[in-house]
Amino acid sequence: MFEKRGTKRMEISELGEFGLIDHLTSGVKIHHPQTVKGVGDDAAVIDSGDKFTLITKDLLLEGIHFDLTYMPLKHLGYKAIVVNLSDIYAMNGTPQQVIIGLGMSNRFSLEAVEELYAGMYLACEKYKVDLVGGDTCSSVQGLVLSVTAVGTVAKDKVVYRGPANEGDLLCVSGDLGGAYAGLLVLEREKAVYKANPEMQPELHGYDYILQRQLKPEARMDIIEILEKTGIKPTAMIDISDGLASEIKHICKHSNLGCTVFEEKIPIEQFTYDAARSFDMDPTLYALNGGEDYELLFTIRQADYEIMKNILEISIIGFMTDKSMGVNLITKSGSQVEIKAQGWDHMKERSA
Amino acid sequence: MFEKRGTKRMEISELGEFGLIDHLTSGVKIHHPQTVKGVGDDAAVIDSGDKFTLITKDLLLEGIHFDLTYMPLKHLGYKAIVVNLSDIYAMNGTPQQVIIGLGMSNRFSLEAVEELYAGMYLACEKYKVDLVGGDTCSSVQGLVLSVTAVGTVAKDKVVYRGPANEGDLLCVSGDLGGAYAGLLVLEREKAVYKANPEMQPELHGYDYILQRQLKPEARMDIIEILEKTGIKPTAMIDISDGLASEIKHICKHSNLGCTVFEEKIPIEQFTYDAARSFDMDPTLYALNGGEDYELLFTIRQADYEIMKNILEISIIGFMTDKSMGVNLITKSGSQVEIKAQGWDHMKERSA
Repeated sequence: MFEKRGTKRMEISELGEFGLIDHLTSGVKIHHPQTVKGVGDDAAVIDSGDKFTLITKDLLLEGIHFDLTYMPLKHLGYKAIVVNLSDIYAMNGTPQQVIIGLGMSNRFSLEAVEELYAGMYLACEKYKVDLVGGDTCSSVQGLVLSVTAVGTVAKDKVVYRGPANEGDLLCVSGDLGGAYAGLLVLEREKAVYKANPEMQPELHGYDYILQRQLKPEARMDIIEILEKTGIKPTAMIDISDGLASEIKHICKHSNLGCTVFEEKIPIEQFTYDAARSFDMDPTLYALNGGEDYELLFTIRQADYEIMKNILEISIIGFMTDKSMGVNLITKSGSQVEIKAQGWDHMKERSA
Repeated sequence: MFEKRGTKRMEISELGEFGLIDHLTSGVKIHHPQTVKGVGDDAAVIDSGDKFTLITKDLLLEGIHFDLTYMPLKHLGYKAIVVNLSDIYAMNGTPQQVIIGLGMSNRFSLEAVEELYAGMYLACEKYKVDLVGGDTCSSVQGLVLSVTAVGTVAKDKVVYRGPANEGDLLCVSGDLGGAYAGLLVLEREKAVYKANPEMQPELHGYDYILQRQLKPEARMDIIEILEKTGIKPTAMIDISDGLASEIKHICKHSNLGCTVFEEKIPIEQFTYDAARSFDMDPTLYALNGGEDYELLFTIRQADYEIMKNILEISIIGFMTDKSMGVNLITKSGSQVEIKAQGWDHMKERSA
């Protein structure tokens, strides 16, 4: 009651998000044999008898994860579902249900909430998942969205963040950096609009990267391709925080190093052009921008012949002994260490 | 993009929380036969082969669900877990896992987050559930907690909010109104403290109702009793919004009416005394206060002989034909309609 807080104060920023989670969950005790995988992957894995049940959740908070100035509510609803489904796909699973938690202030009209739900239903329809419940309540300040996605995977098909094997090939779906480029354009136009509300936003020609930011898709198709080709990745993760951060996760879970070739990292021309217009290196967008929701995975070398013919997938590097480190071979041929600088660092750079 | 909002505006308050959820989810389409029960019960029910998997989630937002002035973080962590487990018990299930979503501003120190987690782990230990993951992020304003609980139940044991049968007996565990009485005491002492920070809060003698508010428990023991006695309720719900609201839910899901006897509603002496000190009717606390996390359920009359001997359970009424309405027989013998006025209304009354 009205307790006195301790005087010693350690800042959370000293640990970082992943350090904090590691710190808080290091003493987790597991009571149930059904708990196959707890903290530390894209989704929790629960033994449901014949199959594994996969469960993941993400919080989306106004002012942190989205800005309603330029994020239409329908897009927000869509994205809130998609980013969670992406975590289920990252386990090689199939999402089946979602549960919604929604906190909002009374400044929202019914029509606004309907827009938000319309976006969520659109995603549910596209990805064939069932909205099975939720919790709606008031929020004193911003909009709060919490989505839980539930999926299923055959026990012999589940893929974790590791361990991959030395020599495995590192693959990534689609292209990277676009979502971050789109965010920068939106932030720029918001600044222009705030300075002069008469100005119309200049978004012409940015369709691709805006879509990557405002209406991302989860790679259901990649999971289907893996199933069809009979390739089971040795490790997999989805790219929410940026390629660099996700590579680090796979390396950590595999106790390995990794070598990545810059020239192999897939970057769309639109992303490239936008980055150049901001005087930035597009590779940095791919490495640290995040929110691309592509799948990053490793395969055995034996699967190379099949994988190299799949248009939607780029082979960008290979797993090495841990002692080799995590490195990028640049286009000029030099080797630099990959650091997971993440989004905040990027924000500073672009500011 | 920068879209113009419509001019027609309907207020969400016109619908209320349950009306809003009904409105938003009326068009839900189910794609998977595994989705046994979606929106509209304490938890979603998913067919996992041998058993049903139960999933529920609740958002807890600072300024709405808790006030850190008098809610210690450790208690908050404990309560956040317990209120979700209560939803699993309300399906006659056994919770096994929880997933945590946590949004917090940088005003929180590591020690503060450790306190919050210590409370969550304490609840996990007591109720034997595994913390299997989560999402931690920044929040611009208040503390945001989102807990998802996962449980399991044998297919022939699951209990929904209905349908109960006409003539079934209405039972409730423990006692009611205490959590709300505790909240009022805390609010009173907060007001005193704000007016004069030198004043020490007067909480002596309020232990019971404070505990009901700050450290509620979920009724795992009742589920065990039901299992042991072989009684399967015909309908069940947990009391989060108040007895009146929950009775209404059971009636709605059963298409029945209900008659409740005021003198049978279990109210602790401490709750009674606190209500009287606020010049309030303690029955109103039980009906509309909420947050008691007791279980409300209906049983067949044939189970009366067993049930009447179970100390922890009170039989407070019976289900009637719908045309009879939902009524309270007061201590003076008059009949009044039960309305689900809920918490907000109570707040106004007590203000």
